[in-house]
Amino acid sequence: MTVLVTGGAGYVGFNVVEDLLANGREVVLFDRGPMPPSAQRAIAPYAKQLTVVQGDICDADQLTRAFELHKVDGVIHCAAVTSGSEREARDPKSVVDVNLNGTINVLDAARRTKVRRVVYSNSGSVYGETLYQGLPRLFEDTSPPIPIRLYSITKQAAERTCLRMRELWDLDVVSARLGNVIGPWERATGVRDRFEPHSQLVSFAASGREALLPHREIPRDLVYSRDVAAGLIVLLDAKAPRHAVYNLSSGQVWGDTMVAWCEALKTVYPGFRFRVAAEDETPNITYSDQERSLMDMGRMSDEFGFRSREPGAVWAGFLDWVRRTPDFWKT
Amino acid sequence: MTVLVTGGAGYVGFNVVEDLLANGREVVLFDRGPMPPSAQRAIAPYAKQLTVVQGDICDADQLTRAFELHKVDGVIHCAAVTSGSEREARDPKSVVDVNLNGTINVLDAARRTKVRRVVYSNSGSVYGETLYQGLPRLFEDTSPPIPIRLYSITKQAAERTCLRMRELWDLDVVSARLGNVIGPWERATGVRDRFEPHSQLVSFAASGREALLPHREIPRDLVYSRDVAAGLIVLLDAKAPRHAVYNLSSGQVWGDTMVAWCEALKTVYPGFRFRVAAEDETPNITYSDQERSLMDMGRMSDEFGFRSREPGAVWAGFLDWVRRTPDFWKT
Repeated sequence: MTVLVTGGAGYVGFNVVEDLLANGREVVLFDRGPMPPSAQRAIAPYAKQLTVVQGDICDADQLTRAFELHKVDGVIHCAAVTSGSEREARDPKSVVDVNLNGTINVLDAARRTKVRRVVYSNSGSVYGETLYQGLPRLFEDTSPPIPIRLYSITKQAAERTCLRMRELWDLDVVSARLGNVIGPWERATGVRDRFEPHSQLVSFAASGREALLPHREIPRDLVYSRDVAAGLIVLLDAKAPRHAVYNLSSGQVWGDTMVAWCEALKTVYPGFRFRVAAEDETPNITYSDQERSLMDMGRMSDEFGFRSREPGAVWAGFLDWVRRTPDFWKT
Repeated sequence: MTVLVTGGAGYVGFNVVEDLLANGREVVLFDRGPMPPSAQRAIAPYAKQLTVVQGDICDADQLTRAFELHKVDGVIHCAAVTSGSEREARDPKSVVDVNLNGTINVLDAARRTKVRRVVYSNSGSVYGETLYQGLPRLFEDTSPPIPIRLYSITKQAAERTCLRMRELWDLDVVSARLGNVIGPWERATGVRDRFEPHSQLVSFAASGREALLPHREIPRDLVYSRDVAAGLIVLLDAKAPRHAVYNLSSGQVWGDTMVAWCEALKTVYPGFRFRVAAEDETPNITYSDQERSLMDMGRMSDEFGFRSREPGAVWAGFLDWVRRTPDFWKT
């Protein structure tokens, strides 16, 4: 089965591509942007299994041609504009065009070429206002998505559209709502405006800048990008998923991660300087410090036995990648 | 204050235009389609107060020019594709383009030309799955919108976008979620695929076709198009609305309306034949027969003293319009 990954050169997309390749799968990496040399190096050993298509999900014909030409059988749709406030204010329609109309293009190409299943990579941020109400856990069906920013508004509209077209087009589509993803390959692709603090810290460490950490760190559920990739592939391969929507996070609260991650980065970059910003200083590591509810992981765990890695293994894996990929932040 | 009404030749939009004109206001009717002769006749007495602009909300430049040229000060945004399943399946992106990107164009033109307020005409159908859970009443903040069809998905995404751009662009926007609107001027505009049964019945009566009514009628909250227009204008004129979103319906259950409406139509069209379809017959009057929860009208009533007309007055007014507008269904 050939799997096409939209946004395959992006953060989550590239983790998916690496996982598929490492497991011997045939992959079409579809992305509008080029890959940095470090990423090209990472997939070089798998050249025989991989086709790279530089293309835009906003171009419906190009998408359909790629699906046909490469006999695509499954799709993991990760391409999106991860817009920050500046982009929302400047060009809101571009967010709609990629995140919602782009998703319709992917579904339409899948329908035309009889793809077996599309997995839609949605975001837990679609819970929006519901994230901040102090609920113990958020459930896919009973915790309402009330998205706030255009990114989340369009991602949630796209998930609802997936479910609607599933019915109208008799298409197999499953959606996963991702938690706060940490790990390899988060980078400025031109369509990603906001970064997890841990990726920012890698960049600061690698470029020799002093990091001023936020005054306090709110414990929250983080999930490793490798686990997210594995979870999306589980959803692609599942025979008959019981649900159309799944939370995909660790379902666990991670506290005090930033200082610990800085200490770890010092083992790779001994000159790395960091400190918690003084009360009257503005941190240069940006971070949403609102307390959020956890996403419940019962569906993924009960149905598929899905378990995310323990924090210790995550930091070790992430650090190993930092060590093996010193040029990532310079390109 | 000059008020621009998008979709001003459409169902709700034309009711708004008539109300504004009758109250001596300056109006810009903005619509992509032409008006039937009956509608042109209705507004002919107000030629001095009215400018008709044939334009498309998908054309951002044209919109902004209309706002500038006519010194628009307030906007009631009614333009939308009221898509049925066939259009959703055939051309889903057209629904997104008009209902979501078109709304962004309206907001952007309003921002550029410093419009005082935009009132967004949303639909109660955005409550979606929440409509069918047997709740006694639906509230704007606590009853979550879980939209099902593309019409509702895009309308709800547009409402959330209104709230977001309100913040980012410092724009005054208020959204109203309309109930099941009955009354004058519902017609096939090219972008309306579904009609209330009462409008269908006018068409059947006027064209001499026998109407086969649904086997049973579910009591539901209907609201008169004249009341909806009045409510939207209340929201436009309010000094400082306390909320950003308001339900706009009657808040009352109306039962057994179809046979009564048929009887009333017989006073205008004595030859009109109608009957409830036999058990093995398919009704030719289409109708969603799912029981829906009522929208609570506390906000509109407490803050503005808004009251919708009693059913008796509604049917009398609607019938009077049918009598005065015999050619509406023939054009």
